[in-house]
Amino acid sequence: MIIRVFCAITLMLSANLLHARGTGDLGIVIERASGSMQIIETTGNSSLGRIEGLGDLSHASAVYSRDEQFVYIFGRDGGLSKIDLLDKKLVKRVMQAGNSIGGAISQDGTLVAVSNYTPGGVKIFDAGTMQLVADIPASYGDSTLQSKVIGLVDAPGQKFVFSLWDAGEIWVADLADRSNPVITKFKNIGSNPYDALITPDGRYYIAGLFGEDGMALLDLWNLDSGVKRILNHYGKGEQKLPVYKMPHLEGWAIAGRYTFVPAVGHHEVLVIDTQTWKEKCRIEVHGQPVFVMARPDGRHVWVNFAVPDNNTLQVIDTQSLSIIKTLTPGKGVLHMEFEPRGEQVWVSVRDEDRVAVFDTSNFRQITTLPARKPSGIFFTSRAHKTGL
Amino acid sequence: MIIRVFCAITLMLSANLLHARGTGDLGIVIERASGSMQIIETTGNSSLGRIEGLGDLSHASAVYSRDEQFVYIFGRDGGLSKIDLLDKKLVKRVMQAGNSIGGAISQDGTLVAVSNYTPGGVKIFDAGTMQLVADIPASYGDSTLQSKVIGLVDAPGQKFVFSLWDAGEIWVADLADRSNPVITKFKNIGSNPYDALITPDGRYYIAGLFGEDGMALLDLWNLDSGVKRILNHYGKGEQKLPVYKMPHLEGWAIAGRYTFVPAVGHHEVLVIDTQTWKEKCRIEVHGQPVFVMARPDGRHVWVNFAVPDNNTLQVIDTQSLSIIKTLTPGKGVLHMEFEPRGEQVWVSVRDEDRVAVFDTSNFRQITTLPARKPSGIFFTSRAHKTGL
Repeated sequence: MIIRVFCAITLMLSANLLHARGTGDLGIVIERASGSMQIIETTGNSSLGRIEGLGDLSHASAVYSRDEQFVYIFGRDGGLSKIDLLDKKLVKRVMQAGNSIGGAISQDGTLVAVSNYTPGGVKIFDAGTMQLVADIPASYGDSTLQSKVIGLVDAPGQKFVFSLWDAGEIWVADLADRSNPVITKFKNIGSNPYDALITPDGRYYIAGLFGEDGMALLDLWNLDSGVKRILNHYGKGEQKLPVYKMPHLEGWAIAGRYTFVPAVGHHEVLVIDTQTWKEKCRIEVHGQPVFVMARPDGRHVWVNFAVPDNNTLQVIDTQSLSIIKTLTPGKGVLHMEFEPRGEQVWVSVRDEDRVAVFDTSNFRQITTLPARKPSGIFFTSRAHKTGL
Repeated sequence: MIIRVFCAITLMLSANLLHARGTGDLGIVIERASGSMQIIETTGNSSLGRIEGLGDLSHASAVYSRDEQFVYIFGRDGGLSKIDLLDKKLVKRVMQAGNSIGGAISQDGTLVAVSNYTPGGVKIFDAGTMQLVADIPASYGDSTLQSKVIGLVDAPGQKFVFSLWDAGEIWVADLADRSNPVITKFKNIGSNPYDALITPDGRYYIAGLFGEDGMALLDLWNLDSGVKRILNHYGKGEQKLPVYKMPHLEGWAIAGRYTFVPAVGHHEVLVIDTQTWKEKCRIEVHGQPVFVMARPDGRHVWVNFAVPDNNTLQVIDTQSLSIIKTLTPGKGVLHMEFEPRGEQVWVSVRDEDRVAVFDTSNFRQITTLPARKPSGIFFTSRAHKTGL
């Protein structure tokens, strides 16, 4: 009996000891086809476990609690899942809409917001209990119409900013009083905003337009100035090439005063001066860029591509504005995530069922880990950043 | 017997369960006079415990392991202490010199470096075992002279950068091969560098000069260009006022293209254009500034002051370049630390034995916690940043 008790103790203690660890070097890899994700760590580059039963994870994204213990996954099927990274368990799953497209966590970490296609609008949940806190329908026109919502981001001051695809509007929701969201609406911002980003400082919100060229810029420090049109030539334009995939705007890389932007349809990365929001030049690349991401120190920018070139990565030097390296990690390079101080980068190689880790100083592959059709990779360091 | 075993189990389990938590919202407060520190958390704003026996902590600073479980404290007496934030225990303490002044952790988190006054030089330790990895004496002149070392920072690519007070040199140590550090030396950079900083992207290293006006700038992306002199009027200059405390250069706030710099001796904050490294204007403030720190979104800059004005904080708006708020938190305001996404700021009020927490959106004090003669405050989010 005593021996049995001791065995039980030993098991319980070792299980629990495993849980007690720092969470600053954790991350997740979305396995899109199987509705699962892996928890990984970036100090030894290993997998710590798999969570299943997360529904349709195509185009899934994630945000982290401010203590970096919990991750919230936004699934395509309207499912919002909260996972404990230490216990490696699904804490709660809420089916909050029929079809959704990403979300955000408030500056103070108490609110999680989800943007929905069907029935549209934004729902806001308590990050602790996962109870619904606010339901913001995206009504427009005569108020009987409901819009799809895209490009939802958090902004300083307990704000969420998002765009209405059908309405051509940008809304700023102030949740300082969570029981009474205050909405500021900007109308006629352009036709069919399809994605948006917020600059890393949380100041500028920029929406891409599917229905016309150019982008809509909102300066959140000067809301009274309203939405301005920038980059009038940005978009499908003369459309010399078919567009295989609209680029991800969240992938914009800001390095020094320049931002590096994927062109739509063209084999080019655009360099934009963030002081004037005008184009400085274009860099020819291997294919149609999807993600254009700066290494955290801003010295290099890494680019992946749409089919048929999605086996390749290219690295741009931000001083010379030239390509200094072309890598072919494998078939189906979908996403990249830099370790917070930039020494390594993780790359999803979907069609080869693995993630590859590269040393960013010499471009050598350090290791590769098995994963089922991996797509998005998200590290806990995002908890400390605005708009991620 | 069985009951006793169960009690023991229960105790061990509950102790251990307490340990299992995310570490992204943790931090420490240095209690300088008593050689102790508190572990705090910023979600509920509470103290989790105190660690004692850390020696002389005047002017102490800290860096974090990349998993945010461990903190390394650099004491004034040459003591380097490693503390486990989850176990709340001192893991190891090494007396590595007679008198030291700060340190840094390498980009990949495997190496901790300490800069020493006596006997001078830099010592580098394995972050895991705390064993000495490299000893870099700061020899200069005919190589029998040893210099005090100051302004030690980490830089991308496993580099450490530091300045030699007595020699007037800046050294870049490349630890990519830890058993064979490669040192690049820059001589005649100016007289008596007394402190230095690295820009948040890890590109520019800037040393202040005690022996003359101006500062020394090294562009780490272009080492061949050597050290340049900038801000020729920066320093003690005509010295209209006595200098009560040389300002902390680590306190430089970078917001957009401008950096906000404490003037030496004068009641002014200098605004510098980081594209030209020239002065744009000066902002008159309440006293001699010590720390000039940007809220993480760069919209506001908070300033504290040397005696006799060290009961006051001022907030500068970075758009209008004017002071929008003056606060008097209490006597002996020594340091500030922003929560990673900027919603709150923690302030040490040394002479009132407490730390105060302010809401940065409305400048209201949220809470105050007892602390013994608190000085530096450091949050785990620093683990993910270069040069902190």
